Amino acid sequence: MAPYRTLEWRNDALVLLDQRLLPHEVRYITLTRVEEVAEAIRNMTVRGAPAIGATAAYGMALAALQSPAKTVEDLLRHLEQAATLLKASRPTAVNLAWAVDRIMSLVNALSTNDPTQIFHTILNEAHTIAEEDVQTNRQIGLNALPLLPPKVTFIHHCNTGALATVDYGTALGIIRTAHEHGHEVFVYVDETRPRLQGARLTAWELQQLGIPFQIIVDGASGFVMRTRKVDAVVVGCDRVALNGDTANKIGTYNLALAAHAHGVPFYVAAPTSTIDLSLPNGAAIPIEERSEEEIVAFDGHPIAPVGAPAFNPAFDVTPAQYITAIITEAGIAYPPYEQSLPYQVETAKKWREKFRSLNR
Amino acid sequence: MAPYRTLEWRNDALVLLDQRLLPHEVRYITLTRVEEVAEAIRNMTVRGAPAIGATAAYGMALAALQSPAKTVEDLLRHLEQAATLLKASRPTAVNLAWAVDRIMSLVNALSTNDPTQIFHTILNEAHTIAEEDVQTNRQIGLNALPLLPPKVTFIHHCNTGALATVDYGTALGIIRTAHEHGHEVFVYVDETRPRLQGARLTAWELQQLGIPFQIIVDGASGFVMRTRKVDAVVVGCDRVALNGDTANKIGTYNLALAAHAHGVPFYVAAPTSTIDLSLPNGAAIPIEERSEEEIVAFDGHPIAPVGAPAFNPAFDVTPAQYITAIITEAGIAYPPYEQSLPYQVETAKKWREKFRSLNR
Repeated sequence: MAPYRTLEWRNDALVLLDQRLLPHEVRYITLTRVEEVAEAIRNMTVRGAPAIGATAAYGMALAALQSPAKTVEDLLRHLEQAATLLKASRPTAVNLAWAVDRIMSLVNALSTNDPTQIFHTILNEAHTIAEEDVQTNRQIGLNALPLLPPKVTFIHHCNTGALATVDYGTALGIIRTAHEHGHEVFVYVDETRPRLQGARLTAWELQQLGIPFQIIVDGASGFVMRTRKVDAVVVGCDRVALNGDTANKIGTYNLALAAHAHGVPFYVAAPTSTIDLSLPNGAAIPIEERSEEEIVAFDGHPIAPVGAPAFNPAFDVTPAQYITAIITEAGIAYPPYEQSLPYQVETAKKWREKFRSLNR
Repeated sequence: MAPYRTLEWRNDALVLLDQRLLPHEVRYITLTRVEEVAEAIRNMTVRGAPAIGATAAYGMALAALQSPAKTVEDLLRHLEQAATLLKASRPTAVNLAWAVDRIMSLVNALSTNDPTQIFHTILNEAHTIAEEDVQTNRQIGLNALPLLPPKVTFIHHCNTGALATVDYGTALGIIRTAHEHGHEVFVYVDETRPRLQGARLTAWELQQLGIPFQIIVDGASGFVMRTRKVDAVVVGCDRVALNGDTANKIGTYNLALAAHAHGVPFYVAAPTSTIDLSLPNGAAIPIEERSEEEIVAFDGHPIAPVGAPAFNPAFDVTPAQYITAIITEAGIAYPPYEQSLPYQVETAKKWREKFRSLNR
């Protein structure tokens, strides 16, 4: 387990590591209201698709706890509002909606007159989502192992480590698993503009894990592939459509094109919670546009001339044709993804049931 | 002419606009020694292949001026040392060596006993190089016009405007010419990490020219091509090999790969002074590696965790196969570049002689 906790339930409150301050300062904030949780997701105090999914689940627990409702009906109405609020906080990662919907269907299926029981059910499910996330990530790492040579150089985009999840990480979890299993690992870390999750967060995690790396600017990945040996690109994802089209942090698509041009395998680490079988392809994935400030200023210092406009899509969509394989907790999905992804989602459900029964 | 001067000879000194301070501050520095000129090139007070070529030419004039040599032989020795110093200041852009060698062959061909005459010859040639650069850029813009639709959206990388040249610009000169000739122009400006020449310098120039634009992070170019109509990518270059392989600011290659994947024409604006016919292909182009500080810190503020290593190649090489055409002052070179580039270089020589005779 990482020496830091991305998110944790403690004394009827949600404690978040403020990722905006990393790597310079390790500061935790304590949230007791669902509105604070939605804002923390929106302003990226917490980020990473799996992490915001679990955060939203705990946000639902806070909503139940803070509700003045005396009746189950009132509480359910209150929870519906909280669900809407949380789901609207960021649009692209499907994990947010996935976690909230999972809580709501459980709650709606309950037959009780006791609001307190609803709170406990939600909190329990949030804990389960958090535990499953860690287990999921570890299994993604193990599933990817056979794809990697003993000496393996990666390019990695954004942050997909313990900080992007409840713990361990998805794509960074793959790198970590390889390292833990004795592979000789080296990582080129895309700094990942505009918010520098690579330079700030991934570099911080790799340092603590003792995995050697170098930070590069995002535009250098093609040059690195051309002039040095790169064995694999590994990235996370915010939403995967039925056909395998994958939304992930802006810059992922350019990286995939470079990998394609150089015959470097391009792997997406995807907990099945990030797979949205309801979308036929990536064209239907909503892409969040964030503030121009993230581009034209750095930590409050202006970069660009006053008044210079910017266009700041937070994500892009990598078409399935550029993705070598999608690695889930249930195994490795290869094209055609229309067939392999539904199979993965089904298998993961069974895998989770098995995991639950073993841990009961 | 731009309201600012990138470089200018004034009162026996070279005045440079300090581009490290832009866009926040317009400050000029005055150099009187060739050592200062080499340092200003190295630390990127002045940057851009054509601009550093002209700067080095004036640096040679300063070397002659500051020399204590009483004889022509001593002065020539001093000038040889100055030439070596200047050529070593940055390795990738060939314009530096081109300008210095042009000065030296002129000087070596002189038959005089008067050191002062050598100084005047050098200064005169530096002025000619500077004037030719402006004329070259204007002609590149005109030559590119037939390639552009009336409503034209560009993606542009780094800075290739008046600031990267003596005046007017190369790739930005193409954009500017289109604008001046009534095309409806829009520019997506790659911010160009790590030194942000796009966000800092190109945005500043476009604002002053009244050309509409938006800054994007370098990783967003593929997404922009996929979701919006982009008609052309235009970039400058630091060295073009005989086969058309082109060294330019890091990130150019990834941009070329994205353009290729989307069928967007990828144009290189290349004064023939940037074409190095002595190199068969891009593998022989020396690629400068700059300080890790440029990546891990921003304006002195650390971005990455303390001690995080970075790899900072300042340029990459775009293989000729991804370049639609190379636009010089002599016309448009299409593949196979082994044939079209020598022809362009020959034609440009004649063009320059014509230009000189017309302006005499």
